[in-house]
Amino acid sequence: MNGPAAAAVPGIQRDALHFLPLGGAGEIGMNLNLYACQGQWLMVDLGITFAGDTLPGIDVILPDPAFIEERRKDLLAIVLTHAHEDHLGAVAYLWPRLRCPVYATPFAAAVLREKLADAKLLSEVPLTEVALSSRLDLGPFALTFISLTHSIPEPNALLIETPYGRVMHTGDWKIDPDPLVGDPLDEAALRQAGEAGVLALVGDSTNATVEGESGSEGAVRETLARLIAEREHGIAVTLFASNVARLESTALAAQDAGREPVLVGRSLHRYVRAARACGYLEDVRLLSEDEGAPLHSSQVVYLCTGCQGEPRAAMARIGSDNHPRVSLGEGDTVIFSSKIIPGNERTIADLHNRLLRRGIEVITEKDADVHVSGHPCRGELRQMYQWIRPQIAVPVHGEARHMQAHGALARALQVPEPVFVENGDLLRLAPGPATVIGRAPAGRLALDGEQIVATNHVSIGARRKLMHNGAVFVSVVVDRSGRTLVSPQVSGRGILDGEDEEATREAIAADVADAVDSLPRAQAREEGPIEEAARRAIRRVLRESHGKRPVIDVQIARVPG
Amino acid sequence: MNGPAAAAVPGIQRDALHFLPLGGAGEIGMNLNLYACQGQWLMVDLGITFAGDTLPGIDVILPDPAFIEERRKDLLAIVLTHAHEDHLGAVAYLWPRLRCPVYATPFAAAVLREKLADAKLLSEVPLTEVALSSRLDLGPFALTFISLTHSIPEPNALLIETPYGRVMHTGDWKIDPDPLVGDPLDEAALRQAGEAGVLALVGDSTNATVEGESGSEGAVRETLARLIAEREHGIAVTLFASNVARLESTALAAQDAGREPVLVGRSLHRYVRAARACGYLEDVRLLSEDEGAPLHSSQVVYLCTGCQGEPRAAMARIGSDNHPRVSLGEGDTVIFSSKIIPGNERTIADLHNRLLRRGIEVITEKDADVHVSGHPCRGELRQMYQWIRPQIAVPVHGEARHMQAHGALARALQVPEPVFVENGDLLRLAPGPATVIGRAPAGRLALDGEQIVATNHVSIGARRKLMHNGAVFVSVVVDRSGRTLVSPQVSGRGILDGEDEEATREAIAADVADAVDSLPRAQAREEGPIEEAARRAIRRVLRESHGKRPVIDVQIARVPG
Repeated sequence: MNGPAAAAVPGIQRDALHFLPLGGAGEIGMNLNLYACQGQWLMVDLGITFAGDTLPGIDVILPDPAFIEERRKDLLAIVLTHAHEDHLGAVAYLWPRLRCPVYATPFAAAVLREKLADAKLLSEVPLTEVALSSRLDLGPFALTFISLTHSIPEPNALLIETPYGRVMHTGDWKIDPDPLVGDPLDEAALRQAGEAGVLALVGDSTNATVEGESGSEGAVRETLARLIAEREHGIAVTLFASNVARLESTALAAQDAGREPVLVGRSLHRYVRAARACGYLEDVRLLSEDEGAPLHSSQVVYLCTGCQGEPRAAMARIGSDNHPRVSLGEGDTVIFSSKIIPGNERTIADLHNRLLRRGIEVITEKDADVHVSGHPCRGELRQMYQWIRPQIAVPVHGEARHMQAHGALARALQVPEPVFVENGDLLRLAPGPATVIGRAPAGRLALDGEQIVATNHVSIGARRKLMHNGAVFVSVVVDRSGRTLVSPQVSGRGILDGEDEEATREAIAADVADAVDSLPRAQAREEGPIEEAARRAIRRVLRESHGKRPVIDVQIARVPG
Repeated sequence: MNGPAAAAVPGIQRDALHFLPLGGAGEIGMNLNLYACQGQWLMVDLGITFAGDTLPGIDVILPDPAFIEERRKDLLAIVLTHAHEDHLGAVAYLWPRLRCPVYATPFAAAVLREKLADAKLLSEVPLTEVALSSRLDLGPFALTFISLTHSIPEPNALLIETPYGRVMHTGDWKIDPDPLVGDPLDEAALRQAGEAGVLALVGDSTNATVEGESGSEGAVRETLARLIAEREHGIAVTLFASNVARLESTALAAQDAGREPVLVGRSLHRYVRAARACGYLEDVRLLSEDEGAPLHSSQVVYLCTGCQGEPRAAMARIGSDNHPRVSLGEGDTVIFSSKIIPGNERTIADLHNRLLRRGIEVITEKDADVHVSGHPCRGELRQMYQWIRPQIAVPVHGEARHMQAHGALARALQVPEPVFVENGDLLRLAPGPATVIGRAPAGRLALDGEQIVATNHVSIGARRKLMHNGAVFVSVVVDRSGRTLVSPQVSGRGILDGEDEEATREAIAADVADAVDSLPRAQAREEGPIEEAARRAIRRVLRESHGKRPVIDVQIARVPG
């Protein structure tokens, strides 16, 4: 029998277990997973993604939570698997629309608290810190946090027990035999879940196209120690600030080589604070930029933000030799202890080239084992499926090609029901065979300054046009009869703004005045014809002079008297 | 003794041989190479590069020819090595500044003629077609065209003989034992040059970081034939339009499988016309889109533009299923017979995912041997150096990492003088050891609409700001004393342009009017204070409502009487 809330969702059944991704299925980023059972909803993760080049002026993209926002009275909680931006980055933006309890293990809670403080939400959000490996009962969902390994401390799988079966929601994971920081992977808990019987595994597809194993942080630690010990001149290591094990490895390698580790870049401090609050990084000294400033580059190892070539981050500024505190040159070394996030290839290659041209050695994961992925390759996926042996496999956390590879692998491992979902697919997991029984609205929102807007918002489209063509702005002042009272004013932005283009601006002003003053009397009494005449005059001049079609804005002021 | 022209160049010597790249050294793109001897200049290639994301509204980048433009009376000719955009694409834009003879072998001449016709320069440019393997005497430079192999018909090395020694300018090349279209690599001529003694090899560094050999078009032909023969449903092959051998391979594979090859995308026709004008592609039928339209997708192979995911090209439209003539779906196959140009990774992956989501199989060079590079890998470089055995190696046609790898390889091969140059470095090749003896101005120009401007032109910077923040336009009409006569008009572009933002625009108008009308009398008589008051009012509203700082344009009209 359906309750009133469940009845409002097309296709959804009260006496069933459903999975509904609103983000993260068909993409790597902005994870938002929902489970529904007996009229109650559970959200797992609420992350952001980055916009790339497609939306001018936009950096941060959020999953559109409208579907669950409408049902927030039935939303029991947001449970976070770990502290990466694509899993918790949207909480500070979207929680005000959801207003539900939030649960996280200590490190994710510490990172989230920093974000909530920035957003002035710290006192409002009911954030509960749960211990590693603990249990949490939320309505029909009995959750067990299972410690896995990843590229950040405290990654958790969630074993979600329901009246209709158990779901293993893996979150992001790998099998790292030597994770260095935090708990090891809890193989016993995974095996035990598998023994007890798991209905569905909902899991990470990121590396499902990659054979073998992702490798261990322990191996990276050895490589970094060797590379740093071998060198005599300046060394900078750039890495993801959230990879606390990597931070520790670099700092220890520096100390072993008699160098001081120096943090360069603000986001490093943020994660170091969170890590220390949780008892990590206690055995390493980490100098601030100020503390490191008096030391020669051969006495330190700089740990730098900006491994993706972000233009304002430390590494890009060091590359262009305009960092206020850090200067590297001929004979020095920069180690990129990081991968290239797809889309950043050109930017990062340009940064490498800037360093190389200045005689700086560049070491990347192509040259030495200075990076390992945090996601399971096919060998690790096989191992996980052997432990869990689910009835259903639901690939998430991947683009189409990754999810298809994950699904095909699950099929090859004889998982009876590999199923594919996209954001918005309402998948009934039980009872009966796993079936997509409906669609929920799913989409993306853009953070535009401080406003959250639709990604097809008129302002974003307008900026795309401005970016290509610029804008011409003309104001026309006319009398009651529509004759110009003063010469029209013309300015250009992104076109016609050169000092040498004064003549063209004047030509436009003259042509606009002529066009307006030549209008038949009846037309000149209305704004429409004046605007159209002005527009035509502007376009005519610019077509000939520039071969461009800018945005044109004509403002007409009619002065009485 | 220096002549008057040579004396004007700092450092340049009349009785010497110099090399000066103004484009293509430190980058892959916009090649512009100069040689100077006895007061005369020779230009080899004049290409473009593509702007990427750094310059909003700009696609095409040109090398700045100012240095040689000032010396154009001493510029003997532009000699083109082959027909790729990065070697001849800038001729139609920059020739009017140089006005010198142009020499090219037949295929490059045919491609150039199409471009000159578009630019209405065909009758002006003195373009001389030279036969393959021919000689050309230009002042102190005696040139021999030597046929190499590459990814386009008729790639030439230039053996440049001068009174100060011979230069082997390789252009773009590889060693393809089975190039399929055009002459084979002229090993005898290369060996002969080596025997005669070569002072300097100036050459392609693109693949100098890649071990082994680049592979043969012949192997790709076999793979394409097999993949196409094996399939029963629709097939599209996307490829670089200028790769005539690949076009022929695809067309023959289609015909062998009983399918009609259909050209989809305009630039394919352009290269097919040029190829046929030179006697290539005579044995294949190639249908136009119109001719292919009545045939079912299983009866044809679509040859498509857009292998880089270019949004308006055929492949992207097929990917989004909005191509007017071609529709692929479940069970069909798309072969990317192409590489990923650095910077296009994200765009191409998105295209792959769009295809995969619709059940279309995607085959790339990772899956099968459907592409080979046109540039020499390390094995081929070794072979070339064994043939030529130059005294000096000058890596060009590469980013810093490629040129450094090329130089290090040359050193390892015991080339006595590997030297590094960047754009603008004036390298004296002889007499004496190869030495950078001066700097010439070198830079980039941008094609902005139909204008050629500096890449730091104010309009481009303005568009970058517009793209992120949008613009607000306000016009204020005041009387002689500076009091508003009508309500200020406010419009937003890229910000404030939503219909739901009428209230904010009205708030700005009211605040601007208040601010202007509250100015002290003396200030209100001048435009500066009025503008500043308006600006402050606008910023105040937007900071609170949007957290953005748009471009603000205030126009003030003072109406007399």
